[in-house]
Amino acid sequence: MPSHEHRESVRLGDAQTRTPRVAVLGASGYAGALAAQLLWRHPRFELTALTSRSDVGRRLDDLYPRYRVPMAMEELDLDRHADGLDAAVVAYPHHAAAPTVAGLRERGVKVVDLSADFRLRELETYERWYGAHPAPALLEDAVYGLPELGYRDRIQDAPIVANPGCFPTATLLGLAPLARAGVLDDVVIDAKTGVSGAGRAATEETHFVTVDENVVAYKLAGHRHAPEIDQELAVLGARNGPVVFVPHLVPVDQGELITSYVKPARDVSQAELDALYRDAYADEPFVELTDKPPGMHDVENTNICRISVHGERHDGRVVVLAAIDNLWKGTSSQAVQNLNLMFGFPEGEGIS
Amino acid sequence: MPSHEHRESVRLGDAQTRTPRVAVLGASGYAGALAAQLLWRHPRFELTALTSRSDVGRRLDDLYPRYRVPMAMEELDLDRHADGLDAAVVAYPHHAAAPTVAGLRERGVKVVDLSADFRLRELETYERWYGAHPAPALLEDAVYGLPELGYRDRIQDAPIVANPGCFPTATLLGLAPLARAGVLDDVVIDAKTGVSGAGRAATEETHFVTVDENVVAYKLAGHRHAPEIDQELAVLGARNGPVVFVPHLVPVDQGELITSYVKPARDVSQAELDALYRDAYADEPFVELTDKPPGMHDVENTNICRISVHGERHDGRVVVLAAIDNLWKGTSSQAVQNLNLMFGFPEGEGIS
Amino acid sequence: MPSHEHRESVRLGDAQTRTPRVAVLGASGYAGALAAQLLWRHPRFELTALTSRSDVGRRLDDLYPRYRVPMAMEELDLDRHADGLDAAVVAYPHHAAAPTVAGLRERGVKVVDLSADFRLRELETYERWYGAHPAPALLEDAVYGLPELGYRDRIQDAPIVANPGCFPTATLLGLAPLARAGVLDDVVIDAKTGVSGAGRAATEETHFVTVDENVVAYKLAGHRHAPEIDQELAVLGARNGPVVFVPHLVPVDQGELITSYVKPARDVSQAELDALYRDAYADEPFVELTDKPPGMHDVENTNICRISVHGERHDGRVVVLAAIDNLWKGTSSQAVQNLNLMFGFPEGEGIS
Amino acid sequence: MPSHEHRESVRLGDAQTRTPRVAVLGASGYAGALAAQLLWRHPRFELTALTSRSDVGRRLDDLYPRYRVPMAMEELDLDRHADGLDAAVVAYPHHAAAPTVAGLRERGVKVVDLSADFRLRELETYERWYGAHPAPALLEDAVYGLPELGYRDRIQDAPIVANPGCFPTATLLGLAPLARAGVLDDVVIDAKTGVSGAGRAATEETHFVTVDENVVAYKLAGHRHAPEIDQELAVLGARNGPVVFVPHLVPVDQGELITSYVKPARDVSQAELDALYRDAYADEPFVELTDKPPGMHDVENTNICRISVHGERHDGRVVVLAAIDNLWKGTSSQAVQNLNLMFGFPEGEGIS
Repeated sequence: MPSHEHRESVRLGDAQTRTPRVAVLGASGYAGALAAQLLWRHPRFELTALTSRSDVGRRLDDLYPRYRVPMAMEELDLDRHADGLDAAVVAYPHHAAAPTVAGLRERGVKVVDLSADFRLRELETYERWYGAHPAPALLEDAVYGLPELGYRDRIQDAPIVANPGCFPTATLLGLAPLARAGVLDDVVIDAKTGVSGAGRAATEETHFVTVDENVVAYKLAGHRHAPEIDQELAVLGARNGPVVFVPHLVPVDQGELITSYVKPARDVSQAELDALYRDAYADEPFVELTDKPPGMHDVENTNICRISVHGERHDGRVVVLAAIDNLWKGTSSQAVQNLNLMFGFPEGEGIS
Repeated sequence: MPSHEHRESVRLGDAQTRTPRVAVLGASGYAGALAAQLLWRHPRFELTALTSRSDVGRRLDDLYPRYRVPMAMEELDLDRHADGLDAAVVAYPHHAAAPTVAGLRERGVKVVDLSADFRLRELETYERWYGAHPAPALLEDAVYGLPELGYRDRIQDAPIVANPGCFPTATLLGLAPLARAGVLDDVVIDAKTGVSGAGRAATEETHFVTVDENVVAYKLAGHRHAPEIDQELAVLGARNGPVVFVPHLVPVDQGELITSYVKPARDVSQAELDALYRDAYADEPFVELTDKPPGMHDVENTNICRISVHGERHDGRVVVLAAIDNLWKGTSSQAVQNLNLMFGFPEGEGIS
Repeated sequence: MPSHEHRESVRLGDAQTRTPRVAVLGASGYAGALAAQLLWRHPRFELTALTSRSDVGRRLDDLYPRYRVPMAMEELDLDRHADGLDAAVVAYPHHAAAPTVAGLRERGVKVVDLSADFRLRELETYERWYGAHPAPALLEDAVYGLPELGYRDRIQDAPIVANPGCFPTATLLGLAPLARAGVLDDVVIDAKTGVSGAGRAATEETHFVTVDENVVAYKLAGHRHAPEIDQELAVLGARNGPVVFVPHLVPVDQGELITSYVKPARDVSQAELDALYRDAYADEPFVELTDKPPGMHDVENTNICRISVHGERHDGRVVVLAAIDNLWKGTSSQAVQNLNLMFGFPEGEGIS
Repeated sequence: MPSHEHRESVRLGDAQTRTPRVAVLGASGYAGALAAQLLWRHPRFELTALTSRSDVGRRLDDLYPRYRVPMAMEELDLDRHADGLDAAVVAYPHHAAAPTVAGLRERGVKVVDLSADFRLRELETYERWYGAHPAPALLEDAVYGLPELGYRDRIQDAPIVANPGCFPTATLLGLAPLARAGVLDDVVIDAKTGVSGAGRAATEETHFVTVDENVVAYKLAGHRHAPEIDQELAVLGARNGPVVFVPHLVPVDQGELITSYVKPARDVSQAELDALYRDAYADEPFVELTDKPPGMHDVENTNICRISVHGERHDGRVVVLAAIDNLWKGTSSQAVQNLNLMFGFPEGEGIS
């Protein structure tokens, strides 16, 4: 498999002598732009190209001055851009991502895909929520990019990493210890997200006047991150039936807070809960446990998920709170975390 | 009963010839100040006095320029202030309210009490959540002040109206049709509130820098509004066990959104849900039904509760969204709505 | 002049027997929508039609739930809409407004125009800042709609009222007493405005993520409200040369604060300043004087301009602060104030 | 001079073998806490102690989770804390700072003082704006800590660096090229600052409800940063009389934008302005020039001052915009920049 050899050569051989070359496709959106910034200042990657469909020719530091990346965005030319390229972060919408990922794979380029196209392992589930899949053959090559939940080893060798959705990232990190311990029975997930999660498109929904002094629920008929959560909770152990999930937009730029209301399968004390979480995350640099409710602001501009778990409530539920920055751990810094793993670099390089 | 005669004389007799006189005790807090403003501009009440412990001598329009109430706050002197007074809005913290309410009642003054002191009908429940009750003998004189949920008639004759908490107001209006129809089985209530709900006290929690770009859950060990919700849901019909309730602070001044996740006791179609809500609120001027998720901003500075109900979800839950302004329908304009009822005035006078 | 007769007949004759009929053209924008709401609940006008180019068929209470105006927007048909119409509020962009205003005038309809098309009396000035004027013949029929600055009488008889820009409104109310007293020499005007002033268009500039946690100056090359301020200051008395004016966008929905730095033409004490302002505004219900700096929040959702003046500074300047709500006194409630004057109604009807 | 020898020994001798030891006094306030965080993660300093008067015993990562500094705050014990200490950042209010700075100097510890106590070189000026000076003898040892304006060399050898105020920092960086070129005649400075500039004290002014949806000017009678600006503009060259300066509080956490309205002493073209600024800042890594108006958000969490200059305006003024993060370049990262200089480290170490 050419791509595999290619990777190995970089990792085991050339890595000693040259820096892996990375491109960001779709760099004009919020997720792509942040990925570009993190890679631009990353000590071990060389950022070689930024592409965009909407802003060809515009410099990224003109579009996002605060990121200070002095590179112009180009129109994608797969042959040219993939030449000598080791990896790409693909920041496209679902459906648009898969064909480009396929093209990159044909040319031996490793991919971290920020879209949903390779997150759902069951084609049928994908098609129920997203419609026909543009590149189903590649599904088996993709590894779910949540290192903390058992995917770390497989990510290291993956040709494609399906970067998790922001809601699944925080939700799953919050629920995994309960799921693994068989304590998770029924769960209601109430999510609050900052507006950057809605993307750069200027719409009535993202207009300042609409968002300011407001909180509103959306996607009441069902959010596509729900089946992603279902899939991974099933892998972790203990769930019957789908999770209940409703997201809310809050007047915040970057930030996400997940409140999970768990009906435990059996009695569980606070001490046991504390032990479960401590054991699960003792060696995880990007998971932070706290006994006070975590706030969005605590994790802004970090790759950290901050979690508290609250048991022994009079209503019998276990409440889990998990906060991340939706653009960082929820998207772009997690992509870099995955890239680090894929190239054998320290996992926190460039994102700590 | 002197107070009753007194009220009657105003309502049936003097009402023709003179305007009821009202005072606001505790006018320097957010709730008291708004009540003062609504009564100041109310066409049928005369606002005769404002009292405050912290701001004696200060004019309310100095403290809150936007309310434009040109009256100074005085130290409470029950004998003097109750003289000729028909009603008072008591905007004190719990425990502090009850003795003052008792003093007002002894002097024949009707009361709308904004504290929690008279909301819980079971003394035992009160004492479990709040400690010893300062005036338990008055509990039976108090009527729960949520007109839309069957209390309208009793409010008209009540010597004391226990104005509901802001969270119970929106939650109960959102759940009542389900509770009455016997559809309500288990419910998780995720509440989001603006900062004015935390009151005027300047603390680390209410500092702009703490709240801005942040969302944080609080009172994880149990919020005192939960037993109030339990009490009223039981009255409405159909619940086993306590509700699950967690509030969150969001970077908004005034506003509250309640997301209730209901496990229905039986299958219920969207059409049936729509009919239940339409029937319940067809004649209620302050409940608004919508099929889009209501936002906090939609009800800011109004006495309106805006509700949507979402059934036929793939996860089997019924999700109810209910938005109010925590200071208006959640507190002060609801107090005026109750005062209107107590004096036989049109229910929306001065708050529409 | 037919329109004049028409108005008189409504005012002196029919006013006794019928309510003037008003339409809002361009009701889907922020200014038009608020004008619609104010007129919908106005006790003396009948709102007969709302028109829009972008949202034909949509109900205003669907687009702006908080305004609760249950009318659908229609495509403009001048002949049909002007039939039996007494007045219109035209909420179009400049250049688009003038031809429609002309069409309304031909049909005898009074107009309050929210655009800039009839604010500048010198055609040459208009054309320097806006390009060719679409209806220059009507310029002489228009009266500048700032009642507090000497235009009240002329507004009562005006066929067209050119509603002032939001920046000129607050700036001129703040500077008029100095200009009239001959104290105003040189002035620097630093304006801060909420985002609703940028209008409903969803753009990169109005996206929540762009505005949030940010303040940015704009129109550095010159803002079109500057010549409007120059024109009116000249009328008031005492200015040489153009004002210096720079606006800034702040993360606020509705609100505007003008800080004017005046180099006084002569020494002026604080006592004299206070007297000048008191005398100027003693009888103006919509101008509020304060000795503390006014805040945007003090005047939100009001037709009030709140002003403080600060002299005897160590740097020799007089600093004037003036706050308004850019959508209310800055635009739509001032339009209703003008309509009230045009129809002989109490000036504050429907906007107090 | 012992302290000098001490510093040299660290810088020239021990620096090879040991890391300089630094403490932050007053670490519980916003400025001290950020300084602590920057030094905690700084590759070349060892953060040995944090002191606080209000939060003794509390860990900084409990008070400010986002800073992740796992150190407890102690009560200051000068003898103990100064033992072996190379430098201290003193984050005290004015008047409280000077005696502590004196105590540190007696013990040979270098100081970066964040207060105003050593910024004004004329004792008389200090006393007019701040009252009696607690340690006037030390004034001559202090160097003004704005490296970009000619103080870089002197900072390297300074026993005390008086860290500039946040307003002077941005204002002076914005005006220096004009002052040096003799173009600066009269200047009006309108400042907008985020709430973190008001400090951690929870007051009516910093309550979320007060700040939200509001902009308000303050210190109209004169802000103490004005004489500091006057002093430095005089050093730079060309000013008569005091600057005009008014600050405004905006609903932003961290950020500051200075709009300076300059009446130029002579005609100056845009091309000349551009050249003046390019020449002044070509080699300054922390000054960024742009032709678009800089926003607060562009410089959040950076040590950068972003500047644009706008000439050839129809009103004859030159408008200069300068944005910084008030807590970073305005305070704490600038303190670290100064520490870097004082110990011979690369100027941007730990703050880039």
